[in-house]
Amino acid sequence: MSSSITVALDCMGGDVGVAVVVPAAIQALRKHDDLELILVGHKAQIEKQLCALGYPNGHVRLSIRHTEQVVTMDDSPVHALRKKKNSSMRIAIDLVQQNVAAACVSAGNTGALMAISHFVLKTLPGISRCAIIAAFPTYQGGLVHLLDLGANVDSTSEHLYQFAVMGSVLISTFDNMTEPRVALLNVGIENIKGNECVKGADYLLRKSDAVNYIGYIEGDQIFSGSVDVIVCDGFVGNVTLKSCEGLVKLVVHYMKEAFKSHFFSKIIGILAKPMLRKVVYRLDTTEHNGALLGLRGIVLKSHGSADVASFVSAIENARRSAEKRLPELIEHRMAHLLEEGRLS
Amino acid sequence: MSSSITVALDCMGGDVGVAVVVPAAIQALRKHDDLELILVGHKAQIEKQLCALGYPNGHVRLSIRHTEQVVTMDDSPVHALRKKKNSSMRIAIDLVQQNVAAACVSAGNTGALMAISHFVLKTLPGISRCAIIAAFPTYQGGLVHLLDLGANVDSTSEHLYQFAVMGSVLISTFDNMTEPRVALLNVGIENIKGNECVKGADYLLRKSDAVNYIGYIEGDQIFSGSVDVIVCDGFVGNVTLKSCEGLVKLVVHYMKEAFKSHFFSKIIGILAKPMLRKVVYRLDTTEHNGALLGLRGIVLKSHGSADVASFVSAIENARRSAEKRLPELIEHRMAHLLEEGRLS
Repeated sequence: MSSSITVALDCMGGDVGVAVVVPAAIQALRKHDDLELILVGHKAQIEKQLCALGYPNGHVRLSIRHTEQVVTMDDSPVHALRKKKNSSMRIAIDLVQQNVAAACVSAGNTGALMAISHFVLKTLPGISRCAIIAAFPTYQGGLVHLLDLGANVDSTSEHLYQFAVMGSVLISTFDNMTEPRVALLNVGIENIKGNECVKGADYLLRKSDAVNYIGYIEGDQIFSGSVDVIVCDGFVGNVTLKSCEGLVKLVVHYMKEAFKSHFFSKIIGILAKPMLRKVVYRLDTTEHNGALLGLRGIVLKSHGSADVASFVSAIENARRSAEKRLPELIEHRMAHLLEEGRLS
Repeated sequence: MSSSITVALDCMGGDVGVAVVVPAAIQALRKHDDLELILVGHKAQIEKQLCALGYPNGHVRLSIRHTEQVVTMDDSPVHALRKKKNSSMRIAIDLVQQNVAAACVSAGNTGALMAISHFVLKTLPGISRCAIIAAFPTYQGGLVHLLDLGANVDSTSEHLYQFAVMGSVLISTFDNMTEPRVALLNVGIENIKGNECVKGADYLLRKSDAVNYIGYIEGDQIFSGSVDVIVCDGFVGNVTLKSCEGLVKLVVHYMKEAFKSHFFSKIIGILAKPMLRKVVYRLDTTEHNGALLGLRGIVLKSHGSADVASFVSAIENARRSAEKRLPELIEHRMAHLLEEGRLS
């Protein structure tokens, strides 16, 4: 088992808890023979779930790390960091820092996850700030990756440049793309458009050959499939992500209302349901998990209201990031750029 | 005709031109007996349209101001401002400045419209920057108004405060609301969340009773109907607006694909079409026109690819803003706040 990959799971985080994380863990173990999991959380609750799933004696590649402390969704990052040193979230991250686990996954409080990860793992050399990256759907059925989605709220041009490099390394590694197309999110595509931060990042990306930079992109082109990675400040990215989530919910609401209006439309609504469900499924950005990039360790963020399938997918992404040694790849790329004097 | 309201229309702006503006002008004149219109643009083209609409001799409440110069969608704001002093857009705005028209409407280049309006009309006393405001749909079927949608890309806390006052005055005037609920768009609703600019604006709004400020709102709550006015920096607002436009197009694309997949679903698709069209119509933020707030004059922005109905609606908004004397109302509110020392 020398080539096995160990992933620590925060079983108590988010709105989901053990009822989602434990079934997801079992599914992931079935899918990947090289996977070992450490379930961090309330032992009795975890064992109860395992029993219900037909594993009264547990699983050979699964161990439990008991703790009762939980970071709640209402905890401030500072409170979680200072007062919850025995929380399931903190222990899962500590296991990565101690090299006991190669990666960790949590569906918990994003702010707390960011703060604890940053404090425990630190950022990679050459990276000033970590960023949250996640995927959005496109016309062609592919995905476009957007970062930062809210790890920061006051990025500089240099930060955006680093985000571009990290996003590019992630996509080229995961999707075997030699030169993922990277764009900066802006209010227009002309040179004169944008704030000083975006203009400065544009300048840094143009003078560097670190990424395949194709220029600015506007909000309405996010889903066009014309780029692979879109870079923006975390404030903009967070509002964009959440606005899109809100709009998808509005679409679902309007659909329900439209088909409810009279008897005939109700019948059509029932017939159309499978197709409409497919549309909503394709749109649902919340299906896609986030990753924290730029840390000396792998931290995956599953959505706070994630279902089993999406938590399994987060575990698989964690496994794959560990297999590909993603942090080392980012570190090497940054070291290379720093050596060649391509970064100030 | 002492109580008539004159509105100047830029007939050559946007992708639409005379083919949309002239029919819209005729419709608006039919709907409002007190409306007078000045059509600014290529005389022969305008007259050709009037002929086609059954008005070979024009209309008693419509006059034409001939010009052949056009601000194109590719013109930079600086180029439009300096080199296009005889453009239909510039003349329409000049007519407002000269008090010949009480308001103007253009579907042209937003950047140029902003720059020329700002230069010709200037901002109101107490207002440092103007802002673009437009409406988004909500769950209840009502509207929520978001500003700034891109007039600025680097707002300060004071600017956001002024936007809040302007948005509040607009909605209370137009919708007869005594205390429209105003919120700041942020990455979280807790006090500690956000960048310095948003936190500063939150402080200013909390200590003032100028608007009915209810606190922060996140992106996924934009469409909830829980607020009437949402304030943000123009960079964030522009990306949000355009992302939503892009997502609506993606919804339409996915719907078409879902119902195209096989014979049976095609039939259901045909039956479901009226309901789905209703959904898309309700979602379509591009139906809603924008207004430039904070200027010593009324400038309405119709969408660049607007249809006749939406241009009519822009003319009606312009007429109503003039009737209500919106700039004066904003000026009075600001003067009142400045007097009472509620603004620095």
